[in-house]
Amino acid sequence: MTISMYKASVPIFVQFLTGLSAVLDKAATFAEAKKVEPSVLLNMRLAPNMFPLVRQVRAATDHAINACGRLAGAEMLSFANSEASIPELKERIVKTIDFLKSLKPAQIDGSEDKEIKITFPSGAVREFTGQSLLLNNSLPNFYFHCTTAYDILRHCGIELGKRDFMGTPVQL
Amino acid sequence: MTISMYKASVPIFVQFLTGLSAVLDKAATFAEAKKVEPSVLLNMRLAPNMFPLVRQVRAATDHAINACGRLAGAEMLSFANSEASIPELKERIVKTIDFLKSLKPAQIDGSEDKEIKITFPSGAVREFTGQSLLLNNSLPNFYFHCTTAYDILRHCGIELGKRDFMGTPVQL
Repeated sequence: MTISMYKASVPIFVQFLTGLSAVLDKAATFAEAKKVEPSVLLNMRLAPNMFPLVRQVRAATDHAINACGRLAGAEMLSFANSEASIPELKERIVKTIDFLKSLKPAQIDGSEDKEIKITFPSGAVREFTGQSLLLNNSLPNFYFHCTTAYDILRHCGIELGKRDFMGTPVQL
Repeated sequence: MTISMYKASVPIFVQFLTGLSAVLDKAATFAEAKKVEPSVLLNMRLAPNMFPLVRQVRAATDHAINACGRLAGAEMLSFANSEASIPELKERIVKTIDFLKSLKPAQIDGSEDKEIKITFPSGAVREFTGQSLLLNNSLPNFYFHCTTAYDILRHCGIELGKRDFMGTPVQL
């Protein structure tokens, strides 16, 4: 009895992306109530040399897509990275969830030992197994960006609780 | 071929707790250079109704201990929650890592379907399987608190990068 690679990836990413989308809903409600321009929240950040909210959300979706896409050997979904409003970020999350749900357990299960070589934009090359990519890299990065998006919005004074971040487990 | 519960828990918690400890080292160096009282950093927070740094670190260690302890059916390590300095927080992390490393794969492997009932301080009772506790609850909460500790310190102007958060994978 062990955990399948599918169970450790797709339903988890979907749960927390759905939570992130609900967090953005509360940000949109806040912005409307306070007459805040949407671009203001999208560009909020916790430090001058940290990514703003919009990049945190893009990074979260990218880590989910890249992890599951690579495990499945599927063509990766990509975006123009031009989102300029909360509805556009939510649309990116919807498309990400649709992509993840399009992957079948049979495509991902058994990918623990799959050799995955990634060339980063810097030119650096790193080699992973499916398991090390998912557990040591993609999930931690994904949670890092989901949490930082939440933290940015909490810092802006938006009423959020851990429950919003956690979302609800999904059966897939 | 699948992932074992041990591989998905102990080495992951150890990797990111070690990263968290290194993040605290940089905070201590910063505090010394800037003549900041240690208690100031420990009490920094991103919003008035969010936990300060000291509680984020305590929560990260607690989620790691409680997850692995429950999966293993081992007696849980607990603390007086009286840490008042960065060295004391780092000591808590050391003890947590020692506890995690004391658990053997045979104690944790096979706990996917183990029924785990948790009574929260509020009195609420939630039922988990080993797998749902680890994947849907403990790891996300753990990453939430590790990331928020990092975010608090980044917001304070401490020079940190994602690499500090990520730590280094460990072979256990």
